[in-house]
Amino acid sequence: MNNKRIGIIGSGPSGLAQLRAFEALKDKGVDVPEIVCFEKQSNWGGMWNYTWRTGVGKYGEPIHGSMYKYLWSNGPKECLEFSDYSFDEHFEKPISSYPPRPVLFDYIQGRIKKSKARDYIRFDTTARWVEYNEETKKFTVHLDDLKIDKTYSEEFDYLVVASGHFSTPNMPYFKGIENFPGNVIHAHDFRGADQFKDQNLLLIGSSYSAEDIGVQCYKHGANSVTLSYRSNPIGVDWPEGIKELPLLTHFEEDTAFFKDGTTEKYDAVIMCTGYQHKFPFLPDELRLKTKNNLYPDQLYKGIFYNDLPELIYLGMQDQYYTFNMFDTQAWAARDYIMGKLDLPTKAERRVDMDKWLERNEALETGADHVDFQTDYIKDLLSLSDYPDFNVDKVSEIFKQWLRDKEENILTYRDKTYKSVVTGTMAADHHTDWMDELDDSKERYLFEEEVKEEEEFVSDRL
Amino acid sequence: MNNKRIGIIGSGPSGLAQLRAFEALKDKGVDVPEIVCFEKQSNWGGMWNYTWRTGVGKYGEPIHGSMYKYLWSNGPKECLEFSDYSFDEHFEKPISSYPPRPVLFDYIQGRIKKSKARDYIRFDTTARWVEYNEETKKFTVHLDDLKIDKTYSEEFDYLVVASGHFSTPNMPYFKGIENFPGNVIHAHDFRGADQFKDQNLLLIGSSYSAEDIGVQCYKHGANSVTLSYRSNPIGVDWPEGIKELPLLTHFEEDTAFFKDGTTEKYDAVIMCTGYQHKFPFLPDELRLKTKNNLYPDQLYKGIFYNDLPELIYLGMQDQYYTFNMFDTQAWAARDYIMGKLDLPTKAERRVDMDKWLERNEALETGADHVDFQTDYIKDLLSLSDYPDFNVDKVSEIFKQWLRDKEENILTYRDKTYKSVVTGTMAADHHTDWMDELDDSKERYLFEEEVKEEEEFVSDRL
Repeated sequence: MNNKRIGIIGSGPSGLAQLRAFEALKDKGVDVPEIVCFEKQSNWGGMWNYTWRTGVGKYGEPIHGSMYKYLWSNGPKECLEFSDYSFDEHFEKPISSYPPRPVLFDYIQGRIKKSKARDYIRFDTTARWVEYNEETKKFTVHLDDLKIDKTYSEEFDYLVVASGHFSTPNMPYFKGIENFPGNVIHAHDFRGADQFKDQNLLLIGSSYSAEDIGVQCYKHGANSVTLSYRSNPIGVDWPEGIKELPLLTHFEEDTAFFKDGTTEKYDAVIMCTGYQHKFPFLPDELRLKTKNNLYPDQLYKGIFYNDLPELIYLGMQDQYYTFNMFDTQAWAARDYIMGKLDLPTKAERRVDMDKWLERNEALETGADHVDFQTDYIKDLLSLSDYPDFNVDKVSEIFKQWLRDKEENILTYRDKTYKSVVTGTMAADHHTDWMDELDDSKERYLFEEEVKEEEEFVSDRL
Repeated sequence: MNNKRIGIIGSGPSGLAQLRAFEALKDKGVDVPEIVCFEKQSNWGGMWNYTWRTGVGKYGEPIHGSMYKYLWSNGPKECLEFSDYSFDEHFEKPISSYPPRPVLFDYIQGRIKKSKARDYIRFDTTARWVEYNEETKKFTVHLDDLKIDKTYSEEFDYLVVASGHFSTPNMPYFKGIENFPGNVIHAHDFRGADQFKDQNLLLIGSSYSAEDIGVQCYKHGANSVTLSYRSNPIGVDWPEGIKELPLLTHFEEDTAFFKDGTTEKYDAVIMCTGYQHKFPFLPDELRLKTKNNLYPDQLYKGIFYNDLPELIYLGMQDQYYTFNMFDTQAWAARDYIMGKLDLPTKAERRVDMDKWLERNEALETGADHVDFQTDYIKDLLSLSDYPDFNVDKVSEIFKQWLRDKEENILTYRDKTYKSVVTGTMAADHHTDWMDELDDSKERYLFEEEVKEEEEFVSDRL
């Protein structure tokens, strides 16, 4: 076993989960194979590693991150908690259910920092091209060390693709957009609401990006926000200043024309039109081709590439469950690599995938989607020793979260939930979300204590 | 010969020059090898193919173009005229010396449209990875057909890299920039001055991008433009509203701090900080590694990769001469491929490159640079049958152009020059450049005639 080599592409939440899965085994004294993780960015954390840059990065690679300032979790943290490393263990006190990005990033890092996993990661290194040799049964990965502008190749027995799928914008053309005088960006390049203060904004899309960027811009002082939907509006009770219109048909200079005959002038356009799964480093025979959905075809148990199960994809699903799903996937992948988990034949795997795909086709409501992914997680949990957690309870929280958002899109982040890992009830954040303009970790974790100290001092005077 | 295959990467002015060079031979009845040209974009023209998109394109590839609206040639067209296809031949009337982008794009296309070259180009196709086999002496190019998301590989005897070097931004970090509230972009993502109207702009850089974007934003209504230089200011007599300051040291929110102690608030930052030569599809042993300069090392005659002259790079120099330089390069490359041009030994080529590199090192003034590239063009012209043109005269125009800009940065585009190809004197544009806000081909070519017609009609009344 220990003469096998595993390559991991990406050190975001999925790649780190894979590293952690092997570290957990190592901690038990098991001899694990050599692991090398390649990370395009200069730090780990994937999407959670915020950068001010847009377009391409320091070394000319397309920017991975779609992260922006003032991003707060848009789902309860109780739905993504690692079952082997709780929020309590990391923060040593209860925190609220909807933390901002720096706090979640801190949490993701906390677990992995306790291991030597960082030593396995080659930062500023991008995979250029992968070849699989049928005879040697090895993957050759051609790599580019961006920092020193040097390419080299390495061989692996297993390849884990954990490069994410919220990095490559899907950006449709609308007639006349080339003459729109204002800023036109994709959500991928949105870095925060500041520059849109006092502006009239058009957001195209009706999924999470549109909802969250729209609300953030409203909160941080945009003059108006219009959300334009293709099929269905988000349909919540929007506050004055945010509204939904059907799809726009075209632009004439700064005026947008919508399907219902409405016309309106805008200062800027943000396309919240989703992302493409993109694997430029993989040839056809290894490349996952899918749109964003809960069960990409060709992946047995959602991770093993059916034509070649030594090729493992992590986190390629549309996501309700996130960090905990990546964990359950990574643990199962690890056990397969370690020879502890046998896969059925290719034909049997096909039958299993078809069963899931069929069910996926029939999903209708948000609750249906939650149930589907909940059952998927249960299936994965049965494959490895990843610490069991109350998935049904998490599913309930997801459904309550859907109702909370429906009830009030501006206040749902003030709600609190109980951890299924520790049973701890989340704390109320010291400030209502709509009034909280500072998303720093310092403000989030310590502001309240500072206040108490001030009170204590004034008591003594 | 005709069983050889030539691969060309890129169909911008350099790649098209290569295609044209072979077409010229074909027109003479010569049997030429099979040529396949791969183009990432959906149309030819490279940098001259304007797109409204920024960041990545429709298929998620980094955007090639750094082109923006309202770009007018910043050098006289007489300095870039094809010697085998004049502006007179294309437009059938004299035009001004500084045409806008659509007019130059039309000119570039005109020559190549008269051939079947378009059939050789596979659009929406990007080169992912190249391997060279020492034994078979062939290049294997792994390609990605973006439109149908399909990869495939092809073999070539010669590979021409014509992918440009003004596409990958060089974007330095300045302390505090992550908290600058306004828009921060690289010149690569600048698409026109409209969105910066009434704003106070900070442009970092002192080369062509800074000069041209600064002047455009001033012309189209920015409130103020500050250019920040690292080593030397551009130093012309700027109009009220444009000024130069030394390098900025850092930002605090929207305030920039400069080396001379100045502080100023800005609405947006445009980094005109240059480009990187970037060849992600090439492994180390084939990859040109250079900064932008007049004589990149490792390229004999500026085009033949010294370790492997079957690998040809076009247009990799910093450029005074452009289209005509690409032509002289492409014609020489063609003759080498056709076996009509013998190269000396590798060691002799090294000696020749060293001679040029040494001279390059000693250059001081703008006029020195022009002389250097003029001599380089003369050297190239001696290698092929590309129609001779009066390079010394072009060199004089370049030097006059440098003086014109120095004299008045806002009016130099109103000057006219005489073609060295046809002897035709350029026409005056119907409108002074500073008053001309429309850069369309229609307005440029026909407005004056429309006016005359109107006069004629009114005469008859």
